[in-house]
Amino acid sequence: MRCELIAVGTELLLGEIANTDAQMISLGLSELGINVYHHTVVGDNPARLTAALEIAKSRADIIITTGGLGPTADDLTKETIAAAFGKKLYMDKEQQERLHQRMGSRMTPNNEKQAMLPEGCEVLVNDWGTAPGCAFYAEGCHVLMLPGPPSECTPMFKYRARPYLERLCTDGQVIRSRFIKIFGMGESAVEDKLSYLMNKLENPTAAPYAKEGECEVRVTAKAGSEEEAYALIEPVVEEIRGVLGNVVYGIDVSSLEEVVVKGLVERGLTVATAESCTGGLVGKRLTDISGSSACYEGGVVSYSNEVKMNVLGVKEETLRNFGAVSAETAMEMARGVRKLTGADIGVSTTGVAGPGGGSPEKPVGTVYVGISAEGLDKVIKPEFRHTATRTRIRNSTASNVFNLIRQEILEK
Amino acid sequence: MRCELIAVGTELLLGEIANTDAQMISLGLSELGINVYHHTVVGDNPARLTAALEIAKSRADIIITTGGLGPTADDLTKETIAAAFGKKLYMDKEQQERLHQRMGSRMTPNNEKQAMLPEGCEVLVNDWGTAPGCAFYAEGCHVLMLPGPPSECTPMFKYRARPYLERLCTDGQVIRSRFIKIFGMGESAVEDKLSYLMNKLENPTAAPYAKEGECEVRVTAKAGSEEEAYALIEPVVEEIRGVLGNVVYGIDVSSLEEVVVKGLVERGLTVATAESCTGGLVGKRLTDISGSSACYEGGVVSYSNEVKMNVLGVKEETLRNFGAVSAETAMEMARGVRKLTGADIGVSTTGVAGPGGGSPEKPVGTVYVGISAEGLDKVIKPEFRHTATRTRIRNSTASNVFNLIRQEILEK
Repeated sequence: MRCELIAVGTELLLGEIANTDAQMISLGLSELGINVYHHTVVGDNPARLTAALEIAKSRADIIITTGGLGPTADDLTKETIAAAFGKKLYMDKEQQERLHQRMGSRMTPNNEKQAMLPEGCEVLVNDWGTAPGCAFYAEGCHVLMLPGPPSECTPMFKYRARPYLERLCTDGQVIRSRFIKIFGMGESAVEDKLSYLMNKLENPTAAPYAKEGECEVRVTAKAGSEEEAYALIEPVVEEIRGVLGNVVYGIDVSSLEEVVVKGLVERGLTVATAESCTGGLVGKRLTDISGSSACYEGGVVSYSNEVKMNVLGVKEETLRNFGAVSAETAMEMARGVRKLTGADIGVSTTGVAGPGGGSPEKPVGTVYVGISAEGLDKVIKPEFRHTATRTRIRNSTASNVFNLIRQEILEK
Repeated sequence: MRCELIAVGTELLLGEIANTDAQMISLGLSELGINVYHHTVVGDNPARLTAALEIAKSRADIIITTGGLGPTADDLTKETIAAAFGKKLYMDKEQQERLHQRMGSRMTPNNEKQAMLPEGCEVLVNDWGTAPGCAFYAEGCHVLMLPGPPSECTPMFKYRARPYLERLCTDGQVIRSRFIKIFGMGESAVEDKLSYLMNKLENPTAAPYAKEGECEVRVTAKAGSEEEAYALIEPVVEEIRGVLGNVVYGIDVSSLEEVVVKGLVERGLTVATAESCTGGLVGKRLTDISGSSACYEGGVVSYSNEVKMNVLGVKEETLRNFGAVSAETAMEMARGVRKLTGADIGVSTTGVAGPGGGSPEKPVGTVYVGISAEGLDKVIKPEFRHTATRTRIRNSTASNVFNLIRQEILEK
């Protein structure tokens, strides 16, 4: 099966937004084994959309469009696609009713337009916004239309389009994946270690992906039922875990910080942060996780030496003898914030994130990460390539904090 | 002039990355008045790239490709495009020499391939990576090839492709823009206020753009020289500033936090942060700005009530009588962190970022932002739509902190 994605929206051609829907859908299609050979973006222009559809018909078995389903005058995707495939639009009473219920007094005649759908289509009900999607088969092509806003497009793909596509390409079988999340080993090293396994696998398959400073391995199986698919996946996941060791931080989890928050809450432990070079990023990422208040006390951003001394209790001679960017300072910061807040665990960061501030002894990328808990005092020094940017250094430093909590507390 | 962007890279079709190059280039082209009618993405596949080029030739005057210029076997953009336009590749001695100098002992025969360029092209020298770009005119089309990695593509577009394109579409004139940055007024309100002006403008032109929680107006002029272009732009920028008032936070600046850091450093003032619902995000964004250590002391993330009381000195009865999410607590947090750190300015955030934690009296989106300085104690309550997500509420709360510093300190 060959698929083409067509995004409809002048805002994409003006550069106001990036086509992240295409990325999300492509990732989902690769899991289903559907080949994506083209992404196309056209504006809110019926003639150019029609021409793009003609081209797509000639080279794809599945066309998925995003955008242009809304109530305004320039939302013309449904009308244009229906015409290109010789279909009429009808008013779908059920969708009309849903729109009225959802919008109440905000309902205008324009909004009714969203319930007009191509004859003979399968409605893809939108529980995340107003405009329904739809799917039909015509002229040798499956055509699916999804709304453009990512907050609607993402669940609409996952819960509406994906099951439709799964039926097409698996002869009644289901495709399921598990994601092995890795921190501290690059994609090529992972590939090296797993090539013996990946080469011999057929069902499930395994493939590594690089993900901003991290890496993941997707294990995908096709089977008669969800249970069977996961049963096929399970031993491969366990084998990969065994081969890679403790660089694996979780299965099907979204981030290191999620693992840390969940693990600390389960154990009834609390953490406090003392941040210098990350300037609040560690706390920010912890509190990105809803419910983190159950394990996160808070902490101190000690950007200046005065705050390091006066709030965290770092000794003046430590700063004088070893400098603010040192293992000794990182250790005192972690101990200090633990004492200050009464948290079970104190963590700290100090370093030179660049681009300024480096010296021959302590170049940009010199970073120390500390942890202090009952019976534990430890500092690590993550390594960075000399090309690492300020953003990369700060993000990776924060990730190292979470990884240290995982390795020293949650997995001990 | 009609332009089509063709991105070449299987990683885009697999969903590993989003096509952010297309967004960046589209934005730059709209500034030049060049219409972008299509974005296309194809994999590292010569046959499909050739077919995409044939389609693009038929509907565009300018084709800009990104990706596939590197040294590996699947980097085939130059070979394929040259063949599609009946051109041969030659070894460019100057580029070969540059590659040797740049790569030194890491130079391999594969790398030499990057210096092979289409006959008769204009070389677009790459000072940000190894693979040079190029441009030529053939079969009624201008074809420009840029490298794919955004860290190379962005400066290559700005400093190499843009001047080439400017020559094409301005009869020797230059096009320059200034960007008016706005916080606290939405795109449609800005459009309403400025429509009288935008409708009568011809050179320069003005157009508003929505930008994640903010908005900007781009004023663009075409003239015989850079000086003349800016002279045309200046009075329009001043008029817009006058009409919009103090929601304008800067001209040609990248962010509110940049304005705040620059303004505080210029005035020799320091700030400290007391963050509850933002959990470190305010500090993170301040320290995203290199050099922020000159004005940022640090602060406290007081996620728990204990930290609010024990570290920041918020009174127990304040928390009991008004709650952690209240104007009173926000005020005591800002005063407390100022006192604790000795900073000139203390700022604070407290609120319900959701999705949990809301109540009928204090629903998700109830947020207070405080500021305390010599002769100033103030709390504001930003408003959020009931659909605002946790991420949106936190980001906007942090932006409100910066905006408050700007309005109460920097512009007083």
